[in-house]
Amino acid sequence: MVRVRDIGEFGLIRRIEGLARGVPASGVVLGVGDDAALLRPRAGEDLVVSTDAAVEGVHFRLDQETPRTVGRRSLAVGLSDLAAMGARPLGFTFALAAPQETRVATILSLARGMLDLALRYGAPLVGGNVTRARELQVTLTVLGAVRRGRALRRDRARAGDEVFVTGALGQQALERARGRIRHVPEPRLAAGRKLARLPGVGACIDVSDGLLADLRQLGQASQVGVDLDAASVPRPRGYAAACRRAGVDPEALALTGGEDYELCFTLRRGASPGGPRLTRRLGLPVARVGRIAATPGLRGAPASVRGRPGWEHF
Amino acid sequence: MVRVRDIGEFGLIRRIEGLARGVPASGVVLGVGDDAALLRPRAGEDLVVSTDAAVEGVHFRLDQETPRTVGRRSLAVGLSDLAAMGARPLGFTFALAAPQETRVATILSLARGMLDLALRYGAPLVGGNVTRARELQVTLTVLGAVRRGRALRRDRARAGDEVFVTGALGQQALERARGRIRHVPEPRLAAGRKLARLPGVGACIDVSDGLLADLRQLGQASQVGVDLDAASVPRPRGYAAACRRAGVDPEALALTGGEDYELCFTLRRGASPGGPRLTRRLGLPVARVGRIAATPGLRGAPASVRGRPGWEHF
Repeated sequence: MVRVRDIGEFGLIRRIEGLARGVPASGVVLGVGDDAALLRPRAGEDLVVSTDAAVEGVHFRLDQETPRTVGRRSLAVGLSDLAAMGARPLGFTFALAAPQETRVATILSLARGMLDLALRYGAPLVGGNVTRARELQVTLTVLGAVRRGRALRRDRARAGDEVFVTGALGQQALERARGRIRHVPEPRLAAGRKLARLPGVGACIDVSDGLLADLRQLGQASQVGVDLDAASVPRPRGYAAACRRAGVDPEALALTGGEDYELCFTLRRGASPGGPRLTRRLGLPVARVGRIAATPGLRGAPASVRGRPGWEHF
Repeated sequence: MVRVRDIGEFGLIRRIEGLARGVPASGVVLGVGDDAALLRPRAGEDLVVSTDAAVEGVHFRLDQETPRTVGRRSLAVGLSDLAAMGARPLGFTFALAAPQETRVATILSLARGMLDLALRYGAPLVGGNVTRARELQVTLTVLGAVRRGRALRRDRARAGDEVFVTGALGQQALERARGRIRHVPEPRLAAGRKLARLPGVGACIDVSDGLLADLRQLGQASQVGVDLDAASVPRPRGYAAACRRAGVDPEALALTGGEDYELCFTLRRGASPGGPRLTRRLGLPVARVGRIAATPGLRGAPASVRGRPGWEHF
């Protein structure tokens, strides 16, 4: 059994680089191996950058899921931030911290999981770092590009906007509650890019901390309030029954669970082409869940969830 | 005494953001606070990206130096990668992992250290992540821009090139050997940008792992060899005597010590304007330390340093 201490920093870097070679890299002038990577957005594009970390024992447990799943989810989370900006991926960097006793196979599975998603979404590995540490930790910086002035932002909601959510909420929290192996959320990249071109689009955020927490963020950034219609928040098929069996409150989970990585966005009053057409346009189920108001604050949250702050990592 | 657990993830993020507000951010369309940052390189520029991490107990010890120094060095290391590419900084992201018992004041000093350098070199904080972990860890991704086709790369050395080093080597390793508080290296950003415009420039790398290790990297990337003139490797003033007092080999330290973050670069045969003029052009002392050869391998390393691999982090 080969451990990280047996092959060292450079050995590990070489093996990860070897895995990463299969991913097409059209926007990459220079990838891994130099002091830095060189990326080339197209003319008229802005660069989009986001950093996320996942720590063993805090964000994942390798006795509950495979390193490959952890790798997939880590990149999915990063790509979801690009989706929420309406951006296309250019690439990502991977900073790994691992105990010297970690099996090399574990690290390579983690990397393979990332590269599964990298391949599917066109996000090549362009750099990173490897260091020893007392616990396993993955820090990813995703890089993307978006047409100037077309980025989806949190601070663009206006009073009167209608609020929408893609897909359904609560599944990830339910799976956490049941201690089940969680499925990897799909970053809504295609929907985000279509949304960025939609006339009348307002603000956008991805649902990472839980809908209530994320709506609060969106409202604060835009200096507006939100009137939520909690009953219309979309939930997965078979979810209510599964929640009952697990003994958890379905409404509370859907509103505060987090980690679903759906998009929550606003459209100007009258700009919505209507539910079914909007769903066709974005290629995803879309539900209207509320309205933006001039008065700050979040209204419409049921009493059962008050005081639940969402999903904090401290 | 306020600890991280007392103010939580969002509290900590808000305080770091507050500190970061004073740094001018000309290339930043949207900084911290959204799902991702938006950066705008100028027309005709490529984006430069590099990620580095520092872990307590591996890369720094807070009983030996202040968090502010650690923060400064962390960003200096990242900016040095931009310097080695000939790039100007656009910004950086800061991923922090910290035990919940960490004093908030420690984290803010760390952030202040980064922002000292951010301000000096025009590299605003544009995003990041905060999570709890068992040990303190800082992962920075630096972002820069460089004129297309002008980036300094490791793979551009050719047989016949002369090899140069800026500044002097060995100081950081000597300070490590003495257990002293280390000074923070200057990222050679101005020199790197001037170098990128110099006619006849070949390859460039920053001296992070130790000159021998870095020359080996440069040689391998360029598929060439290096004939080193070890005696001409520049050393700091008073260095030989200080090494004698500390009981360490000055030559070995200068060649393998690492972390000096000077630039090592090549110029085409005859392209050098001569030592003093080159020094004036780059605004830094520059010494010629060898020549690139067609035959792969590194020659000229004294017997005393053979088998020392440089500065590995596993």
